Amino acid sequence: MGAVATPLLASVIGLIFVVVLALDVLRKDPGNETMVRISRAIQEGARAFLKREYATVSILVLLVAILIALAPTLTRNPDLVLGWRTSVAFVVGAVVSALAGYIGMSIATRANSRTTQAAADDGVRGALGVAISAGSVMGLSVVSLALLGLAVVYWVFRVPVIVNGYAMGASLVALFARSGGGLFTKGADMAADLVGKVEANIPEDDPRNPAVIADNVGDNVGDVAGLGADLLESYVESIIASMALAAALLGIGSMASERLMTLPFYIAAAGIIASILGILFVKAVGRKNPQAALMGGTYVAAILTAVASYFIIGNLGTAFTIGGKTYGVLGPFYATLAGIASGVIIGLVSEYFTSTKYAPVKRLAEASQTGPAITVTAGTAVGMESTAVPVLVLGISIIVAHHFAGMYGVAMAAFGMLATTGMVVAVDSYGPVADNAGGIAEMAGLDPSVREITDNLDAVGNTTAAIGKGFAIGSAAFAAIGLLSAYLASASIEIADVSDPKVMAGLLVGGMLPFFFSSMLFGAVSKVAFEMIDEVRRQFREIPGLLKGEVMPDSTTCVDISTRGAIRGMMKPGIMAIVVPVIVGLYDERALAGLLIGAVVTGVVLGIQTANSGGAMDNAKKYIEEGHFGGKGSEAHKAAVVGDTVGDPLKDTVGPSINILIKLMSVISLVLAPLFVK
Amino acid sequence: MGAVATPLLASVIGLIFVVVLALDVLRKDPGNETMVRISRAIQEGARAFLKREYATVSILVLLVAILIALAPTLTRNPDLVLGWRTSVAFVVGAVVSALAGYIGMSIATRANSRTTQAAADDGVRGALGVAISAGSVMGLSVVSLALLGLAVVYWVFRVPVIVNGYAMGASLVALFARSGGGLFTKGADMAADLVGKVEANIPEDDPRNPAVIADNVGDNVGDVAGLGADLLESYVESIIASMALAAALLGIGSMASERLMTLPFYIAAAGIIASILGILFVKAVGRKNPQAALMGGTYVAAILTAVASYFIIGNLGTAFTIGGKTYGVLGPFYATLAGIASGVIIGLVSEYFTSTKYAPVKRLAEASQTGPAITVTAGTAVGMESTAVPVLVLGISIIVAHHFAGMYGVAMAAFGMLATTGMVVAVDSYGPVADNAGGIAEMAGLDPSVREITDNLDAVGNTTAAIGKGFAIGSAAFAAIGLLSAYLASASIEIADVSDPKVMAGLLVGGMLPFFFSSMLFGAVSKVAFEMIDEVRRQFREIPGLLKGEVMPDSTTCVDISTRGAIRGMMKPGIMAIVVPVIVGLYDERALAGLLIGAVVTGVVLGIQTANSGGAMDNAKKYIEEGHFGGKGSEAHKAAVVGDTVGDPLKDTVGPSINILIKLMSVISLVLAPLFVK
Repeated sequence: MGAVATPLLASVIGLIFVVVLALDVLRKDPGNETMVRISRAIQEGARAFLKREYATVSILVLLVAILIALAPTLTRNPDLVLGWRTSVAFVVGAVVSALAGYIGMSIATRANSRTTQAAADDGVRGALGVAISAGSVMGLSVVSLALLGLAVVYWVFRVPVIVNGYAMGASLVALFARSGGGLFTKGADMAADLVGKVEANIPEDDPRNPAVIADNVGDNVGDVAGLGADLLESYVESIIASMALAAALLGIGSMASERLMTLPFYIAAAGIIASILGILFVKAVGRKNPQAALMGGTYVAAILTAVASYFIIGNLGTAFTIGGKTYGVLGPFYATLAGIASGVIIGLVSEYFTSTKYAPVKRLAEASQTGPAITVTAGTAVGMESTAVPVLVLGISIIVAHHFAGMYGVAMAAFGMLATTGMVVAVDSYGPVADNAGGIAEMAGLDPSVREITDNLDAVGNTTAAIGKGFAIGSAAFAAIGLLSAYLASASIEIADVSDPKVMAGLLVGGMLPFFFSSMLFGAVSKVAFEMIDEVRRQFREIPGLLKGEVMPDSTTCVDISTRGAIRGMMKPGIMAIVVPVIVGLYDERALAGLLIGAVVTGVVLGIQTANSGGAMDNAKKYIEEGHFGGKGSEAHKAAVVGDTVGDPLKDTVGPSINILIKLMSVISLVLAPLFVK
Repeated sequence: MGAVATPLLASVIGLIFVVVLALDVLRKDPGNETMVRISRAIQEGARAFLKREYATVSILVLLVAILIALAPTLTRNPDLVLGWRTSVAFVVGAVVSALAGYIGMSIATRANSRTTQAAADDGVRGALGVAISAGSVMGLSVVSLALLGLAVVYWVFRVPVIVNGYAMGASLVALFARSGGGLFTKGADMAADLVGKVEANIPEDDPRNPAVIADNVGDNVGDVAGLGADLLESYVESIIASMALAAALLGIGSMASERLMTLPFYIAAAGIIASILGILFVKAVGRKNPQAALMGGTYVAAILTAVASYFIIGNLGTAFTIGGKTYGVLGPFYATLAGIASGVIIGLVSEYFTSTKYAPVKRLAEASQTGPAITVTAGTAVGMESTAVPVLVLGISIIVAHHFAGMYGVAMAAFGMLATTGMVVAVDSYGPVADNAGGIAEMAGLDPSVREITDNLDAVGNTTAAIGKGFAIGSAAFAAIGLLSAYLASASIEIADVSDPKVMAGLLVGGMLPFFFSSMLFGAVSKVAFEMIDEVRRQFREIPGLLKGEVMPDSTTCVDISTRGAIRGMMKPGIMAIVVPVIVGLYDERALAGLLIGAVVTGVVLGIQTANSGGAMDNAKKYIEEGHFGGKGSEAHKAAVVGDTVGDPLKDTVGPSINILIKLMSVISLVLAPLFVK
């Protein structure tokens, strides 16, 4: 089969599964009237947010598309390899990402009350089935649509430099999905916690709290649509980087370059099929131990992909020579393996540092007894400690992958990590569905036994979310390094020497950007939280009977505040991420190389630290709530609540957005490389 | 005059001033019996800590000295440019740093009660006079001893590669002085605040609190001895880096290299004289506005040094050629100017983000009304935001300095920033003396008007401390970059390409090290604080009449806990800082280059963020205590106290230690470069 036909076929199979799984979800009982009403409020909130987000982003996409299309005219350089074709690829990439987010979220927000009802009717077995089906709709939409679009763009244009535009489109949408979603969800969450739990002393997810619906909407827009767009981007970029490197290093048209360019397509196709099998595995064995089922499915998908890669690379690959060094046929396979292995290790490290099962979180919970200051300090320290192994693993994989297949190998390692994205996103998106289901059980006043089942599923979801976050950061770093290498090759930069003052200055400034970018997001999320706090306090004060539960709160206004705050807050950091590499690139292409790698260096460390600090503080609170160190209401618990509130924007707004920052700046540089070369 | 005679003469003049100023301090009235008793307790605590610290460090120094001396034998390479001479230079460097710390601290701990008494007798005028004299003893000891030792070592050995050992000795002592001092001071401070202010509800510096003496000792060992050792190291390293680069890039023995190697010696001599004049300026005009006097003195010293450099470089410099590019005689002058200017800008930015006078701290204080979680989040954001301008300034200065004088210019820019170290350390060390003086006024129960004067001086000290921290980080980054360039030149690494997988892996791992190092320090400081909290609680519980003020607490045990905790806590991070570059260097000298620059990139950003986050949270608390947003005892104040406690180890333990980490790893690499080259 051809390099286009195979991915097309796999994508179509993936999309058929999307339809089957979506129908499977929709067929389920959505529960009683209250549950349906709540679920509908969440659906409407999510839809309203997406509509507004996409409206804003599409203006930006259009603007950038016009600039790219006009670039040859504007620069009076008709030979410039930009222009309308890159522009079309760019728009397609943006549309594909937006579409995947829309589909995944539509089903996820319909699956929540159905999961609750299934928990009531059918226990763990039924609830897990609905939630994982919904997650899989997102997971398979992401990979199927991404690969479909990419294969079509590749088939139509055939020039890697043009196809790069596709990744840039996906990246732009991902930036806004991730940071916008993160701002939405944490602004609402912090306000709901601070006013509801701390001031009004009502439980989490209480229907009297006006910010609760916004918080539930946030789970979907942040953790379903945001994460999906993030991984879709990494997925596309790792394929693009492999293709661009094969083309740049081996010369377009050479037999070796043609073969190496198409390898990722075949492996991606195998990855989709492996992910489908992994999902079926979860559905088949998930009745007893949800955690084991989800992990098992992930391993099944990874192992099947690894085996398939061996045969694909062995049969369709070729020996090749880069920079005078010859690499064997199976070189890219070993590189792919290094990527898969590092993905697994990074995920496990994230679990160790953030799960209530292991020492770091238990010690953090213990430290909470000394008050909030020590909790936050110790939580920061846990995140910092957790950076060591993942970064070492990344460093080693780069050396190993390069040893076996040169720079092409580094990009293939990134791709190896991402080949099972379908499965990873499915497992990750399951979490927010389970979380929402618990919220609905609480708000609809169902029997506590139902909440117990959903809580159990949610706890599993927290662990898989932590692993997913580690995976997202690791893959973002890898993808960015792949893109960076492709940029160096495309801009014909043979050497970017660290003792070159421009490279050095670029490294320093690039290293600062993730910090500065984070400060903007922190500012924005606080602003949303402030407004929301004022509104919730106002409703408690002004709506008679609200706190007694006699009337319903005005949730729509809260959803509105989050929506407006998120859209407004994502503009400044978003524009910075787009403009800075362009300015630096126009100044000096080597300074830009330094800037990109500087941003990756601090971005990956800060990303891991924020994700794991946040995850550890969240779960330390949960551990105390399980009854340790005085349990709920104790001084330790109060301190842990402060820690959790500090950790929330760290892990769900700032950390994930950094992934996109480093990838977006790299992909912009890659696309615009022809512009920067003098 | 010769290149050795001039610095020797300047050093001797500096040391004469040290004696004059020390006698000036000791001549003053030490106050009443209670004040003398408290001051003596602080002196004894400080002396006990230094004794133990130096005893521990000297074992390590001896070990490393033996290894360096035996290196040619151990590696069976008798031509290796290491051996006993480098070993001697190394030991001299260590001794000089330890000696400067000892002298400065002896006078600082004797000046505290004398400053209090002068405030009572003579008002602001007298108190400022004593405090600045004491600070100047530290400042001039640092530069005079450092330059004296360096000139002698240079005169005896004449080989830059050997002289490098001197910087490594200073660096090793600095690591332990900074991290040990930081652990000591913050362990005590956090415990004193948490148990005293929060639990027992007694004011700061209350004599009933057993941890207060340890806290006051900590101010001296951390902010006087630690800061002095830090800047002494940067000072020596920037000279060494200039020398090593001149030698490596222009060839030992060439006229140009001889001239460029000696330039820093002359400028350093001018810097000492300029610092003395700056100090005299402060003493002359400081009667009315202490803040203006201290800033004025700093500017006087900087301007005089700049003018002197112009004449020195114009007369003693030479045109020179590096890598085919020729630079004019005055090239190094412009590079030096760039360094001086960036030092000033970085200091001003630190002031803006941490002073109660400007918007960031005011907004942070306002945010404290929403509780501790938002305080910490907003405080983190302030620090992150504050990284942008300093890093941009550093990047631009590197490009400017390189433009005018190549890589040698970058080292000279670092040196330009540090030429007035004498003045900077004098102003910085003034702060802890004023702080201690306030503590003594409180503990001895003097008239509130005395405390008012010392509080005023202390507030000025907080601002100068923030500026000093910014300066220390900026100069550390610059010095590390100078050393890194010298390492590349010495290890004959012509190219360290970022797309080389080993360089790339080195960059990532190096970028992780400051985070991992910080996590160890956080762990250690929490441990000290925990032990101290237990002890303070025990004393409150078991010593009858203590809380009523009838008997004195057992301060010695608290000093002991801090001392033991600090010595124990600094071993693991210290050894990591020494061992990691050696292992990576032996593996691959290019990977080490990547590691060093990766560490500088995250180190400088994290260093600025932690220093300014901590400073901003500290001053937000002070701003509220001045009566804003409800003042002392309000909810906003409680939240701000949590923020301050989180910020304390950030700004005084972790941040400053990162400076040393990046410098120490770079200087070790430079010294051992002959070992790493295959």
